[in-house]
Amino acid sequence: MTNKVQTAITPTREEDYPQWYQEVVKASEMAEKSSVRGCMVIRPWGYTLWENIASTLDVMFKETGVKNAYFPLFIPLSYLEKEAEHVEGFAKECAVVTHHKLEKGPNGKLVPAGELAEPLIVRPTSETIIGESMSKWVSSYRDLPVLINQWANVVRWEMRTRIFLRTSEFLWQEGHTAHATEEEAKERTQMMLDVYTKFVQECLAMPVIRGAKTESERFPGAVDTLCIEAMMQDKKALQAGTSHFLGQNFAKGSDIKFQDADKKEQFAWTTSWGVSTRMIGGMIMTHGDDDGVIMPPRVAPAHIVLLPIFRNDEEKSKVMEYTTSLAKELRQVLYHDRKLVVEIDDRDTGGARGWDWIKKGIPIRAEIGPKDIEKDSVFAGRRDRSPKEKKAIKRSEFVNSMVDVLDDIQNTLFSRALEFRNANTIEIDDKKTFYDFYTSSSETRIHGGFCMAHWCGSRECEAKIKEDLSVTIRCIPFDSKDEKGKCIYCDSESGKRVLFAKAY
Amino acid sequence: MTNKVQTAITPTREEDYPQWYQEVVKASEMAEKSSVRGCMVIRPWGYTLWENIASTLDVMFKETGVKNAYFPLFIPLSYLEKEAEHVEGFAKECAVVTHHKLEKGPNGKLVPAGELAEPLIVRPTSETIIGESMSKWVSSYRDLPVLINQWANVVRWEMRTRIFLRTSEFLWQEGHTAHATEEEAKERTQMMLDVYTKFVQECLAMPVIRGAKTESERFPGAVDTLCIEAMMQDKKALQAGTSHFLGQNFAKGSDIKFQDADKKEQFAWTTSWGVSTRMIGGMIMTHGDDDGVIMPPRVAPAHIVLLPIFRNDEEKSKVMEYTTSLAKELRQVLYHDRKLVVEIDDRDTGGARGWDWIKKGIPIRAEIGPKDIEKDSVFAGRRDRSPKEKKAIKRSEFVNSMVDVLDDIQNTLFSRALEFRNANTIEIDDKKTFYDFYTSSSETRIHGGFCMAHWCGSRECEAKIKEDLSVTIRCIPFDSKDEKGKCIYCDSESGKRVLFAKAY
Repeated sequence: MTNKVQTAITPTREEDYPQWYQEVVKASEMAEKSSVRGCMVIRPWGYTLWENIASTLDVMFKETGVKNAYFPLFIPLSYLEKEAEHVEGFAKECAVVTHHKLEKGPNGKLVPAGELAEPLIVRPTSETIIGESMSKWVSSYRDLPVLINQWANVVRWEMRTRIFLRTSEFLWQEGHTAHATEEEAKERTQMMLDVYTKFVQECLAMPVIRGAKTESERFPGAVDTLCIEAMMQDKKALQAGTSHFLGQNFAKGSDIKFQDADKKEQFAWTTSWGVSTRMIGGMIMTHGDDDGVIMPPRVAPAHIVLLPIFRNDEEKSKVMEYTTSLAKELRQVLYHDRKLVVEIDDRDTGGARGWDWIKKGIPIRAEIGPKDIEKDSVFAGRRDRSPKEKKAIKRSEFVNSMVDVLDDIQNTLFSRALEFRNANTIEIDDKKTFYDFYTSSSETRIHGGFCMAHWCGSRECEAKIKEDLSVTIRCIPFDSKDEKGKCIYCDSESGKRVLFAKAY
Repeated sequence: MTNKVQTAITPTREEDYPQWYQEVVKASEMAEKSSVRGCMVIRPWGYTLWENIASTLDVMFKETGVKNAYFPLFIPLSYLEKEAEHVEGFAKECAVVTHHKLEKGPNGKLVPAGELAEPLIVRPTSETIIGESMSKWVSSYRDLPVLINQWANVVRWEMRTRIFLRTSEFLWQEGHTAHATEEEAKERTQMMLDVYTKFVQECLAMPVIRGAKTESERFPGAVDTLCIEAMMQDKKALQAGTSHFLGQNFAKGSDIKFQDADKKEQFAWTTSWGVSTRMIGGMIMTHGDDDGVIMPPRVAPAHIVLLPIFRNDEEKSKVMEYTTSLAKELRQVLYHDRKLVVEIDDRDTGGARGWDWIKKGIPIRAEIGPKDIEKDSVFAGRRDRSPKEKKAIKRSEFVNSMVDVLDDIQNTLFSRALEFRNANTIEIDDKKTFYDFYTSSSETRIHGGFCMAHWCGSRECEAKIKEDLSVTIRCIPFDSKDEKGKCIYCDSESGKRVLFAKAY
């Protein structure tokens, strides 16, 4: 016997972080692998989370004047080729449709038939197909800006997949805008990064570092890629959203031209920006503990589960009546523009029932038995605290304090994550310390963390570090101060520090 | 010069109905053809309509206990083959993915590479892939029912396409449920048809006839297909939604088994049901007139457009102030759980501006000029009435009466459509009259209508009529009374009338 605390998830984060992640996802019933290579099935608990994420972001986009539209799933190969770097970036991992029917082959089995004249690519992203439409819609500066967003599935044929983090098919939104001036397009690029920052920090409770990608880490075809980077509990970075300034590259490829006020023909300036179901993986790895997922209340699929307790039919009818009336009362409470979502779990599974909800990460659990009812109270626990930490609380207080308690959970999750990131972010100024930081082994196989170090700006130094350590420059943070220093790799002069990390 | 009334859409419905439809869609800026064969681009005005349709239906589904989930876009060929009739039904028109990357070919051009061991079909519908998941989720009767819905894109490689009505890619929802008993599955099939009926009649203002499909018109693999059928203004039928009772066919194919309360192993009973962007085509063809689309207020992308009128900057500032404040007031008004959506169009395009909104089908237009403001009134018109019929109305009355006016428009559209359908539905009892009904030519090329006639129940008579007239049995209406008669084709005995029509 050890005196180790029993946890709901095996292995723990310390024992095996990647495996912990897989087990947490499975135990939460959020999603599972499908038998289709690299594709996932998003189950209702995970999909409801995605609906909450999507509907919140959707309102934020629309507040900036963006409207939703929908474009074809298929992109003709010739379209993808309109921007050279772009096709280069996606050719290695795309699903190609080559036929449009099935026919019985020589051995009686169905085989692809009706070969297409031109192969179609299942969209990995839609710059080129949306550019085609924009070129039709835009002829005068009066037609600009065009501000479009699409909620869609995309496919990138990943070789190694992991649920939510990297799947061949994933769900996302992709915003695409066209503008009359460079300045306006750059402003939009920044504006959408601001929207992502606000959402990820306030709703997913994930602190992020904002910055620009280096040339080698940019979106294929972009002039500038802005990003937000978050730290997971294994101290790796996860890119939680990107916003690209595309210059006139795609406008030239797709022929998006307009007459300006002086009747001069010009190419438009475009942007694109996206977040995906990948964020869900990041959210799980930021907040989850050894008992499973922890849902930030602002996006949680449900806020509260009521667990009625009874031993016989007489008790059942009394307890269920109380529970139902409490649920009704709670469902009237408004929490950040959304009525509280309350689940009642009256399954007869004893202790396992409570643990099911802990593993799902629901913010509040409340047990209701005959004795609680006598005292007009419930026995409640918070997901951000130990499963054992439950206490009796008067019904009226429970209801009245709910908004504050949920906000407190939300804030606690954010503060914890920020504290963790700060504790694992350091400045390093010499190469040996830097290399040690990312290679020092330990039982847990979790190394390093975030490092702010000087970089001379050369692709070569960046590539060498990546080769040696699998460490990349996550971004050149906006708030990195001007400061004289020497490149961590080659000792050449550098004007500011950049953010290094291992990354998902 | 003719004294023909000038309309916004050329040709008119009478002149050329199919062409009228294309022009109406184009003029409304709801959607357009893409350069990808058979695929459409849904523009913001059309997509917002789809968002309203989807969010309304989504609430209705969830009220019946259904939860949303998401399943892979790709279906392995072997899965589709699990149900023989099913694969037969879709093999002729499907997009087949055969490769997972692109490589430079001999001539330097990119060509498909990385051939897949098994071809993947882009989902035409998801019974088989969802069945695979259900088989994992279900082991005991306690796991049933499973009530799942998916909002997704699907692909059916149609040879002749028409925007919204028949496109290779379309958006839809597909519900999939599994039950412990035949009775419960049949109840669910009927329940979802009831949801569709309520939505289509109350929100899209389209009267429908409810019934069951004949064997030859059923969904491939279904035991029973229930449907709702609407009449378009060219008197053709459009199937606006279907709900399938699948028996144990798909459960056997996908091995969805459970232990019942007596520990006996049984196959589950499944259903599936769907509506798609096709409904939008039906809505346009039901209500549209020779000036364009008419949006039913319950689903309209916007309810009211305010059209400020001014001749100089001084007037502009005064008029815009009034307009903005009126918009703000209107946006507080609740119309069927949705705040009124108000557009302000301050473009300087004179009369064309008002016509743009007529063609888009917005329910209410209101002009606001300096003279209107003096009288604290607006000059308003309704889309369901003649464009010329506009009248001055006091601001307060305009605001206060808005909910009633919108409801009146909604009801008017429904009544008109019902009246039209009733006027063009007849009972016929002899073959010659029946054949004349569907062949009598006229300038307008619009024939027949709905015919309730007797049918002996044989596939042969049904096939002959289809061959001769392109007329099909749309459904065996639920409310078709028991009545002795003779088959319209073969004179054999028949127990009730069925609904015949030409169809989209």
